[in-house]
Amino acid sequence: MKIRVTIWNENVHEQRNPKIAELYPKGIHGAIADILGDVEKYEVRTATLDMPEHGLTDEVLDNTDVLIWWGHVAHAQVSDEVAERVKLRVLDGMGLIVLHSGHLSKPFVKLMGTICRSKWRENNEKERIWVIEPSHPICSGLPEYIELPQEETYGERFEVPAPDELVFISWFSGGEVFRSGCCYKRGLGKVFYFRPGHEAYPTFYNENIAKILVNAVNWARPLDITRPTLGHYEALEKVEDIYAGMSDAERKHENLQNMV
Amino acid sequence: MKIRVTIWNENVHEQRNPKIAELYPKGIHGAIADILGDVEKYEVRTATLDMPEHGLTDEVLDNTDVLIWWGHVAHAQVSDEVAERVKLRVLDGMGLIVLHSGHLSKPFVKLMGTICRSKWRENNEKERIWVIEPSHPICSGLPEYIELPQEETYGERFEVPAPDELVFISWFSGGEVFRSGCCYKRGLGKVFYFRPGHEAYPTFYNENIAKILVNAVNWARPLDITRPTLGHYEALEKVEDIYAGMSDAERKHENLQNMV
Amino acid sequence: MKIRVTIWNENVHEQRNPKIAELYPKGIHGAIADILGDVEKYEVRTATLDMPEHGLTDEVLDNTDVLIWWGHVAHAQVSDEVAERVKLRVLDGMGLIVLHSGHLSKPFVKLMGTICRSKWRENNEKERIWVIEPSHPICSGLPEYIELPQEETYGERFEVPAPDELVFISWFSGGEVFRSGCCYKRGLGKVFYFRPGHEAYPTFYNENIAKILVNAVNWARPLDITRPTLGHYEALEKVEDIYAGMSDAERKHENLQNMV
Amino acid sequence: MKIRVTIWNENVHEQRNPKIAELYPKGIHGAIADILGDVEKYEVRTATLDMPEHGLTDEVLDNTDVLIWWGHVAHAQVSDEVAERVKLRVLDGMGLIVLHSGHLSKPFVKLMGTICRSKWRENNEKERIWVIEPSHPICSGLPEYIELPQEETYGERFEVPAPDELVFISWFSGGEVFRSGCCYKRGLGKVFYFRPGHEAYPTFYNENIAKILVNAVNWARPLDITRPTLGHYEALEKVEDIYAGMSDAERKHENLQNMV
Repeated sequence: MKIRVTIWNENVHEQRNPKIAELYPKGIHGAIADILGDVEKYEVRTATLDMPEHGLTDEVLDNTDVLIWWGHVAHAQVSDEVAERVKLRVLDGMGLIVLHSGHLSKPFVKLMGTICRSKWRENNEKERIWVIEPSHPICSGLPEYIELPQEETYGERFEVPAPDELVFISWFSGGEVFRSGCCYKRGLGKVFYFRPGHEAYPTFYNENIAKILVNAVNWARPLDITRPTLGHYEALEKVEDIYAGMSDAERKHENLQNMV
Repeated sequence: MKIRVTIWNENVHEQRNPKIAELYPKGIHGAIADILGDVEKYEVRTATLDMPEHGLTDEVLDNTDVLIWWGHVAHAQVSDEVAERVKLRVLDGMGLIVLHSGHLSKPFVKLMGTICRSKWRENNEKERIWVIEPSHPICSGLPEYIELPQEETYGERFEVPAPDELVFISWFSGGEVFRSGCCYKRGLGKVFYFRPGHEAYPTFYNENIAKILVNAVNWARPLDITRPTLGHYEALEKVEDIYAGMSDAERKHENLQNMV
Repeated sequence: MKIRVTIWNENVHEQRNPKIAELYPKGIHGAIADILGDVEKYEVRTATLDMPEHGLTDEVLDNTDVLIWWGHVAHAQVSDEVAERVKLRVLDGMGLIVLHSGHLSKPFVKLMGTICRSKWRENNEKERIWVIEPSHPICSGLPEYIELPQEETYGERFEVPAPDELVFISWFSGGEVFRSGCCYKRGLGKVFYFRPGHEAYPTFYNENIAKILVNAVNWARPLDITRPTLGHYEALEKVEDIYAGMSDAERKHENLQNMV
Repeated sequence: MKIRVTIWNENVHEQRNPKIAELYPKGIHGAIADILGDVEKYEVRTATLDMPEHGLTDEVLDNTDVLIWWGHVAHAQVSDEVAERVKLRVLDGMGLIVLHSGHLSKPFVKLMGTICRSKWRENNEKERIWVIEPSHPICSGLPEYIELPQEETYGERFEVPAPDELVFISWFSGGEVFRSGCCYKRGLGKVFYFRPGHEAYPTFYNENIAKILVNAVNWARPLDITRPTLGHYEALEKVEDIYAGMSDAERKHENLQNMV
C-alpha cells in the first residue's frame, strides 16, 4: 500500500524573492516532491499557505499518512484552526516531519508544549551533521556525517523537550552545535524534526538529505494502530468494595488506618 | 533560602459537597499546606479558582518557586490567560506539580502538547504504587510500594509523552496499570505528574504521599539557571564565506558540488 | 531479502520434564520457529545449549540478523566465550530478542550492565499486558491489552536501565506490575526484552504473542548501517595550534587565562 | 551529613612524564581533591592504582558515597576483581563520576554494556561545551557554554547507550561534536560521564569545570534508598488458581481458549 504524503510549504520566499525562485523553481515543496518520486511507494500531494484552508482540509488530511512541513516567515499567517487540526491529526496517528525553521510553526510548537526557540544567524557557514544513532531507521544508508558547505546556522540551547531519540547533532563552523535530528512520539503519531533546509541554499538537492527524508517518511507513517479506549471504563476484574455499608466517617477512618 | 510554594486548588468539591468538605475541612489545598508545614524550609501560600485571576497574578508567580495544581470539575473555568501564564512560567523555570485529575488541566495539557486522557472509574479500588526508580530524589525515603485501600482508578494508555523519568507505576484491583509518577523537563522548568489524590479519599493525609510531595517540591524547585540566549547570535569563531564574490548561480553550483 | 532468524533455547525443561515436553513437543524453539513460518520473509534456524558452542558458532552468527533467546535453569552452563560473542554481535548490529527468564541470561546481563533481577513466583496468576505505546512498530496490530489466564509472575522493581522505549506494562492478579516490553539500542544493535513465556504455560501458542514476536523481529533486524570510525581520527577542519612555539609553562598560563 | 568522596586516579602520567607532573604537581586526584575542599560538606580521600587493591578495598567503598574515576593508559592494569567490585557498588547505590578517558575504564564499560569507544586525537583544539539542559542540577550556576582553549578532541559516534539525560554537547575546532555530559541511572546508583580533563591541559583548574564536579557529586550521592526485594516474593493479593484440579492437558486447553 502506498504511503500518502502531503508536503506543505508556505511558499512565500519563492514568490517574493527571485533568487529563491531560481534556486527552487518548483518551490521547496516541489523539490521535496521530486525526492519522493517513487510512484510505486508514495502518493504525493503538495499544499501551500495561499490555498483555501492552506490546502489542509479535512479531506486532504483524511488521505495523508505523513505530513511534511516547511515554513519560515509566515508562521503567523497559518490559521489557528488549521494548526490545531494538524496537531490533532498527529495525536491521532498521522506522521509529521518538520523541517528547518518549521521548529517555530504553530503545529510543532503546540505539539512540543515549549517555545522551541534557538540561536540563529545567516552567515554562510559549514554544517556537518553527525549520525548519533547509526541503527535508527532514519539513519539507514547514511555515511557517518553529512557536510553542507553553507547553511543557515542554528545553535543550542534548542528549547524543546528532550527528544525520545536523538539521531543527529550538527557542528557549525561559527562555533555552535545543534540537536539536528529529533524523534518524538506524541499521542498515536510520530514527529521528526530535521534542522537543515534554509531557502537560500540547495540543501534539498543533496542525495543524503533526500535519503533522510525518505527514511523519515517511512519511519513516521502510521502502522496498524489500535486506538486505546479513553474515558470511563468498566473494571476487568471483579472488585469488592471492602468498606461497603460503612458511613463516610468510617470509610475515612478505615482508609487512613489501612494505607501503607 | 526558603522554597516558595503556591498550592492551587479549584476548591469546588469542598464547597459543593458536604462529604468532601468533611473529608478535607481546610480544602485539599489546606491539607497539602499542612504537609509543607516546615516553616524553616517552605514559604507556602494557597490560591483558588474563585480569587481574582484565580489567585495566580504575576505578583504571586513572581514569588513562586514551585506551583502545585489540583483541579477536576472546573478545568474549563480556568481562564486561558492564566493557563498560558502558568505554562510560560514553567518554561521560564518554575516547578510544577500536577496532581491526579490535574492531568486534564489547561496548563498541563499545554505543556505536554497532547490530550492527556486515560481510562478512569470511581469504584473504590485498591491502588498499589510501585517504586520503579529507587534512586530518584522523588523516591527518597519511600518503601518499595505504597498502598491506598481505596482510590479512583486510572488506566493506560495514558496519552502523554513518554516521561523523561518514570518513577512510579500503579496497580489497580480492577485490572489496570498506570504510569503514576512522571517527571518532565520543559523549557527551564521541571514538571512532576502524580496520579493519586481523588477528592473522595483521605489520600493527602498519608505520610508516604506527604513524603512524595515534599520530595517533589525539592526536586522541582528552580536552581541557579542561566537563561540561554535565544534569537540572533554572532558567530563565536571567525568564519570565512568560502564562496564570497560568487554569483548566486555559482554559489548554488559550488554548494551542490561540495556537499558530502 | 529474507530476515535470518536464529532461535536459541536452552531446551532443558523439555528434556527433563514430561509435562513441558507435552506442552512444547517441538521445544519452545520449535514453537517459536512455527510462528516465523512465513518462508518468504524469514529464514529460520534453531540452536540449543547441547550443541557444540551451543549452536552459536561464528558461522551461524554471520548468518543471523536477529537472535531470539530463551533460557532459564541453565544460564550458568552457557560458556562465557559464547555469551561474550553474542554481546559483541549485538554491538555490531545483530538484533536480540530476550524472552522471559532470559533476563538473567549472560548476554542480556552483559548488555544491560546491571543485575537484571526482579521479584517472581509461580502461582498460576493472570497476566494482563497493557500496550503503552500504540504507535511503536512492536505494537502494530495488537489490541489494547493481551490477557494470559495463567503465567509465572514477575514484579518490579525490575533492575534494568530505563528502557529507551517502554512499550508494555503487565498487571498481575497477585498485585504486581512489570515493565514487560523494553526496547534498547546498544552499540549498532537493537535489543527487545519481552516478559511472558514461562515453560509451564502455552503462551507461545497465542496469536497476539506471535504477532509481537514477528513485529519484534522486524523491528530488531539490522538496517543499512554505516559503521562509524572509532579510534584515532584526523581533523576535518584546518586547526592552528594557537600557542605554538610556547613553552609548557607558557601554554599552561595561556590555557588557564583564556578559559571561559 | 558530609558526602564522602573517593577520588581515584591511575596516577601514571604524573609519575612518568615530568611535563604532566609539573602541570599537576599533586596529581590529577590532588587537583580534584582541592576542588572539593569544603570540609564542612565533603569528606575526601584519594586512591591510586599502585595501592593494594588499587586503594578501593571494601572498607574504603563502605565509606564512599561518590567515587570519581580518572584513568587512561593503565585501564588494563586495574584488576577485574576491583572493577567488578566498583560496578556492584554502583548498582547498590554508590555514585560514580567518570572523567575523560575513563570512558574506556573497566567499571564504566561494564556498567554501560557497550564498548564505549569514540574518535579521538591530540591536536591542541578548542573545546566549547554547550549546556543543553540548563535546569539540570549538574548545570546549576554555569554560563551557557564553557570554553577550553586547548583540549584533547573526542568525536561522535560515542558508542554508549543513549544517556537518560544529556546535559552537555561539545564543539571542537577540528569539526567534531561529542555528548560530553551523560547522566545514567544504573541499579540503585547514578553515573555521570564528563568528557574533558586530558592530562596535558590545566582543565581541572578551571572554575566552571570545578562547579560541574561539585554539582555532579551532589547529584550522584545516594539518597535514602529502600532496596527493593529481589527474588521469590509472595503474592500481595489473594489469588485463586482458576484451573485448580484440572489435568495438565485440561489446563493447557483452558489457557489456550481463554487468552485474549
